[in-house]
Amino acid sequence: MLITFEGIDGSGKSTQISLLKDKLTSVGKTVRVFREPGGTQISEEIRELLLNTEFHIDSVTELLLFSSARSQLMSEEVLPALEKGEVVILDRFYDSTTAYQGYGRKSLPLNQIQQINSIASHGRTPDFTFYLRLSLDESNHRRAHLSKDRMERAGDEFFANVIKGFDDLAEQEERFIVIEASQSIEVIHESIVKRLSSKLL
Amino acid sequence: MLITFEGIDGSGKSTQISLLKDKLTSVGKTVRVFREPGGTQISEEIRELLLNTEFHIDSVTELLLFSSARSQLMSEEVLPALEKGEVVILDRFYDSTTAYQGYGRKSLPLNQIQQINSIASHGRTPDFTFYLRLSLDESNHRRAHLSKDRMERAGDEFFANVIKGFDDLAEQEERFIVIEASQSIEVIHESIVKRLSSKLL
Repeated sequence: MLITFEGIDGSGKSTQISLLKDKLTSVGKTVRVFREPGGTQISEEIRELLLNTEFHIDSVTELLLFSSARSQLMSEEVLPALEKGEVVILDRFYDSTTAYQGYGRKSLPLNQIQQINSIASHGRTPDFTFYLRLSLDESNHRRAHLSKDRMERAGDEFFANVIKGFDDLAEQEERFIVIEASQSIEVIHESIVKRLSSKLL
Repeated sequence: MLITFEGIDGSGKSTQISLLKDKLTSVGKTVRVFREPGGTQISEEIRELLLNTEFHIDSVTELLLFSSARSQLMSEEVLPALEKGEVVILDRFYDSTTAYQGYGRKSLPLNQIQQINSIASHGRTPDFTFYLRLSLDESNHRRAHLSKDRMERAGDEFFANVIKGFDDLAEQEERFIVIEASQSIEVIHESIVKRLSSKLL
């Protein structure tokens, strides 16, 4: 089973992933967690390039680099783990590419981004995508205390478009489960567990 | 004007590019030469990843990394130079991706590779592509004295498929000019100059 978490920075993805991992482990599942971009030697090298504020990176290049890191993570870690029956949780997946590089940067038409997403993921779709939804105002408030890497140095219009991207995906894709990120950590965790209970618990 | 050189390693591309650059410069053209992958700070970093023999790189990842490096070279160097009326000569371009990653590694169906090629090149097609054709036997003989990086560590079947890829492209693409690489350096240079004379000399 492949579970992905989406949402802008500060939406609480890492906290929820950690709680879910503990819960699934406690009932005997083997759980692997990866963050994108990263998770393999070469994907971490690509991550360094992407987050380095010294580089000027063209938006198409950025899209292709995220996709390169994803492709390697899929072939080296995710697909073999799924093959063995393990549960894989991803902190961001290709929906982030659609939202950030498609809606945010408008690097390419959305249908081209979807084609690249499909190639980079080796054709594998998530079984569940938990979208921790945060409004722009809430996001600005939460992100005010975080140091900003290259991806986070963008203005309000950019983030409004990214949120619109996730919202559109949530309407189009049945695998999306929208959770309001302004709720308490415990309430969010319980909704996630409840949603998965018939499949995994 | 965008001129690309294609052909397997040992076919004499660098020598011919250097001679052509001198010739065009001598008649007053401003000429920029780039080798792929490379030519920008981030593209050179990607080149290091691709040629590093320590990494296992999935064939789809490889394709996307070459495309990332290309996209950045196009946006940062090639397109601005063409805009200024300069002549750009590329030592390999997306036809190498079709031949090596498509025909050689069979990483993806050819139509998907062509879509990625089009995206990575920002839609720009070469005006002339000089394909220095070398048979597998000649290539093996020439390459016997070169040290081998990760891309060159592949067997005869791989290189036979790569050559087939270039040959197929030469039949399909009008911009391709096939030159037998077994000819002398001077004869090859003269054919190239002759072919360009009406446009550039």
